[in-house]
Amino acid sequence: MTTELTCDDFLGGRLRIFQPARGYRAGADAVMLAAACPAAAGETVLELGCGAGVASLCLARRVAGLRLTGLERQTDYAALARRNAEANALPLTVIEGDLAAAPPLLKGASFDHVLMNPPFFLGGTAAPDGGRATARSEETPLAAWLDAALRRLKPKGWLTVIQRADRLDGLIHGLHGRAGALTILPLAAREGREAGRVILWARKGARAPLRLLAPFVIHAGGRHEADGEDLTPDAAAVLREAAPIRPVIAKLP
Amino acid sequence: MTTELTCDDFLGGRLRIFQPARGYRAGADAVMLAAACPAAAGETVLELGCGAGVASLCLARRVAGLRLTGLERQTDYAALARRNAEANALPLTVIEGDLAAAPPLLKGASFDHVLMNPPFFLGGTAAPDGGRATARSEETPLAAWLDAALRRLKPKGWLTVIQRADRLDGLIHGLHGRAGALTILPLAAREGREAGRVILWARKGARAPLRLLAPFVIHAGGRHEADGEDLTPDAAAVLREAAPIRPVIAKLP
Repeated sequence: MTTELTCDDFLGGRLRIFQPARGYRAGADAVMLAAACPAAAGETVLELGCGAGVASLCLARRVAGLRLTGLERQTDYAALARRNAEANALPLTVIEGDLAAAPPLLKGASFDHVLMNPPFFLGGTAAPDGGRATARSEETPLAAWLDAALRRLKPKGWLTVIQRADRLDGLIHGLHGRAGALTILPLAAREGREAGRVILWARKGARAPLRLLAPFVIHAGGRHEADGEDLTPDAAAVLREAAPIRPVIAKLP
Repeated sequence: MTTELTCDDFLGGRLRIFQPARGYRAGADAVMLAAACPAAAGETVLELGCGAGVASLCLARRVAGLRLTGLERQTDYAALARRNAEANALPLTVIEGDLAAAPPLLKGASFDHVLMNPPFFLGGTAAPDGGRATARSEETPLAAWLDAALRRLKPKGWLTVIQRADRLDGLIHGLHGRAGALTILPLAAREGREAGRVILWARKGARAPLRLLAPFVIHAGGRHEADGEDLTPDAAAVLREAAPIRPVIAKLP
């Protein structure tokens, strides 16, 4: 890898991650995704598009005894994910390959949990019309992520996704008739704001009804306070102390 | 109509409604639906399944100069809706007929707005398994409501629906590719609770991205205070003073 790397703290320093200084860099979304996964010791977990491994390694740090696999298409990121797992002494098997064409190592494998944070702008940058053309061009790729996730899940296995809120319709449409127990957690930057992200859980082949939870609010107060730390207590617990999104996990059907 | 009637106040007494003492009775959902409709003077509005006319008449009370039509399958309710319109001196044309087979008076007609509050248990009561079988049996009927709504809307016309939150997936799936600008308002009984209902707006043939708004909270405080009035100020304004759900209406694309 020729690009410059940074070494960043996650989970209040419980995890140190090397990632490229430029290009795709993991942040709060990856940590929230890991905090949302209801995996328990002894279970198997697959992360689709694991990048430098932040979400999987956050999950491994919170829950001991998981068997974690990351699938990553880009050689450089796959190598970084392996390096990050080793540097943090956490168990993560990284497989290089594309989610649309199952690599030999994944063929026939199935998992208790699948995690994913599909890129928000598949196929390019925002369109000049303010995202409309992009939203349309994204449709098939998001469906491919959902297809791959459902193919790799055991029956009644859990999919956990974090995604931009405006792609909720694509998620729901793509899962229709194939997964149930859909549970939506809106993530709002501040109290009273509309959701910027959603976390969505779905259970393969389940039929339990959809639930729309109260928002998880990231920042306290009405506006950003310069450089001050203004996380809500719940968000601080998740981002700085490796807490699960516990009330939600406890309530999942 | 052989059944006993009651006469109920809505909108803090601005509307008096005759409806059956037993059977389907309109309540806060109908008032919220009317408050959510972004119709303006001079526009045409169709309510599918208008029952005794509560939602349409609440809307007529709030916005002068609308041309309102209600479609109702049951003769008794259609007659009550006409009676309620007359008693409140509000303009509402009631057509008796089924939404799946357009009555002659509706053939070829199209509207700026369609409102609806489809019955939550189409085809019967809750199933003994806690609603799973019912949720499945509802799927086609809900799709028929959405089909009828889209058929009667002008291009770029607005659909406004109130519905149980667990049917959000059916709503989104049924509108996929046919309507855009989907905007979801979760309705929560109290702060921090999951949504019991959703209001959903969609614009026929539009492509603007989905938005998931902050919840509208109905009751203040942590629990129901005996018989005391515990509505939040926003809910009281809508239910008692005929206010629109104004911040939302102002922000619709």
